[in-house]
Amino acid sequence: MPVYDDPLDARAIDGAALQRWTATILKRIGTPADIATDVAEVLLSSDRRGIASHGTARLGHYAALVEAGVMDPAARPTIERDRPALVLLDAHNGWGQHACRVGVDLAIERARDVGSATVVLRRSNHYGIAGWYALRAAAQGMIGVSMTNSSPLVAPTRSRVPMLGTNPIAVAAPAGRFDTFCLDMATSTVPRGRIEVAARRGWSLPVGWAIDVDGNPATTTDAALAGSLHPLGGTEETGGYKGYGLAFVVDLLTGVLGGAAFGPNIVPLFSVHADPPDLGQVFMVIDPAAIDEPGAFEARMEEFIELLIAAPTVPDAPGPVLIPGAPEAAAERLAAQRGVVIDREHHESLLELAERLDVPLPAYNVPAARA
Amino acid sequence: MPVYDDPLDARAIDGAALQRWTATILKRIGTPADIATDVAEVLLSSDRRGIASHGTARLGHYAALVEAGVMDPAARPTIERDRPALVLLDAHNGWGQHACRVGVDLAIERARDVGSATVVLRRSNHYGIAGWYALRAAAQGMIGVSMTNSSPLVAPTRSRVPMLGTNPIAVAAPAGRFDTFCLDMATSTVPRGRIEVAARRGWSLPVGWAIDVDGNPATTTDAALAGSLHPLGGTEETGGYKGYGLAFVVDLLTGVLGGAAFGPNIVPLFSVHADPPDLGQVFMVIDPAAIDEPGAFEARMEEFIELLIAAPTVPDAPGPVLIPGAPEAAAERLAAQRGVVIDREHHESLLELAERLDVPLPAYNVPAARA
Repeated sequence: MPVYDDPLDARAIDGAALQRWTATILKRIGTPADIATDVAEVLLSSDRRGIASHGTARLGHYAALVEAGVMDPAARPTIERDRPALVLLDAHNGWGQHACRVGVDLAIERARDVGSATVVLRRSNHYGIAGWYALRAAAQGMIGVSMTNSSPLVAPTRSRVPMLGTNPIAVAAPAGRFDTFCLDMATSTVPRGRIEVAARRGWSLPVGWAIDVDGNPATTTDAALAGSLHPLGGTEETGGYKGYGLAFVVDLLTGVLGGAAFGPNIVPLFSVHADPPDLGQVFMVIDPAAIDEPGAFEARMEEFIELLIAAPTVPDAPGPVLIPGAPEAAAERLAAQRGVVIDREHHESLLELAERLDVPLPAYNVPAARA
Repeated sequence: MPVYDDPLDARAIDGAALQRWTATILKRIGTPADIATDVAEVLLSSDRRGIASHGTARLGHYAALVEAGVMDPAARPTIERDRPALVLLDAHNGWGQHACRVGVDLAIERARDVGSATVVLRRSNHYGIAGWYALRAAAQGMIGVSMTNSSPLVAPTRSRVPMLGTNPIAVAAPAGRFDTFCLDMATSTVPRGRIEVAARRGWSLPVGWAIDVDGNPATTTDAALAGSLHPLGGTEETGGYKGYGLAFVVDLLTGVLGGAAFGPNIVPLFSVHADPPDLGQVFMVIDPAAIDEPGAFEARMEEFIELLIAAPTVPDAPGPVLIPGAPEAAAERLAAQRGVVIDREHHESLLELAERLDVPLPAYNVPAARA
């Protein structure tokens, strides 16, 4: 499972205070208040859930895009094509988090009307963690699916260059007393951030994570960072073509379906020198209550999860079978107690923004160790 | 990529003749003619596409279920709950191939009406290859998604026993002059059939395919066949929890959503001593034409595929980057020329049925070698 260990030089900031500060920063660079509220909520959700790479650590990159005129902080999505269960939104190069909050809310509303619905966006920007949007549907008792395409980092099976993004897929559903199921996964074996963490810690890499620039397995982090990520499944022998196929499907349902950019046409991540990235996202929402008695779906989810967590484990298992989303939910509960825990580099990037835009950053503590 | 080599002792039978014979066998065991037509078409599609494990090789197993009274060959699906974009069908324990042909056709019809639609089935049986149903949507210019749950063979990450089926996911879409994109994948690293093939050929197994009964990596086929399959991604280190998460999602969208059996509750494959399996399937269909100009989606698919197949390849690549579904489409074209190629064991199982039910099997040839 992903590493949610505390960073080596950890600092904790109260989550609510950091969220307010983030919204203020966003307004300072030209974001209307209601849009800033959406963006800050998605970014803090990522920090709270232990996915530091997609939260406020990216705020400086986002601000740079706005300040360079690459992204329009005040743009609002509009409906371009409208059918009862399929809607195309144009995000007009505004904040992805806002356009996608509007998008998933529309999919939820339509699913309530007709049972299931799909909303696809074009001319969008990065939307943070895929899971946030799926969880928003789950909070309404529905099954939510969320996908985005992204800048090329992954080499399709047999390719030695990156042609596809890490193209995440998230699926969430209400799970009764087990709270919420939430699978939120890159379709690569690991995201690039995992290799960066390994580099900082001096680890070598297993075969199946990445290839070097010549297309051979990368077992050092330097070789991997200069090369390409493997799709989920790793090499051809261990099923990497399935992860490649899934990444293709994400581009198919986002950029290709929505008429946005796709695959190798997408500009590099957070580039202030490139055109707007024209990303695509898709949300698919199903309302189980439309075809079932109230609570019946959740009761079956409980039964399914009970069976899984009771499975006898492999000899070296660090614990019982995990339910997707449970580690992130535990991180969120911990963050509510001790604050959002970030590393020094992340903290310094926020201090720089705070100083430059004259919005004092909330104070930090050294966090208590995890239970 | 999957092995589509000819078997060692290959026999070729004309596909159309074998399909007619299959339909006659199905009628002989009590299947109404129109249902037999559906089932024979799906089974022969599997044989033609080189997926021998899911085609007429299973006909004897299906017949045994019917003859034991476990499956009702004459049952027809009924609509249980009906919303414009979400329908629940009860298959009444009839042929999965027929109920699911009806199901995906209904999803296509609804998607044409409202843009996208989901149809979920309960009390169903095995439906053969997942891809057939997705391809049926693609043939109508739509994006089709097809999933089924299945008997437990896969150990979730950290479990040492099977708790989930190989739960396939298929996605198909029209691709203009590249014909059709069709990803059709088990959510395990490999299906059990791949290990059986390896056993017959005396191969050892890479880490990431399977675990033995104690939960350790299985590197011999005997250990693997006695143990459990790994989910896609293999071990925890190489992302197996993502394949586990995908298998969970398939059960969530089929058995849990539809109120069918799920996970470890599903009876063993083709057991004549068990209750009916009560499988669940789901079909999700999106109509790109509902939000776009005619042909625009296909044109973007062409552009995307052109970019991918032009990628420079890794040193040991056996060919260019493959588009999911292309090897199966090539197998289908070859089968149209030289017949459906099956192995001796498969042929003998058909001869046994032919004799027992008094329906002469079409003659076979030794196939010409592949170009």
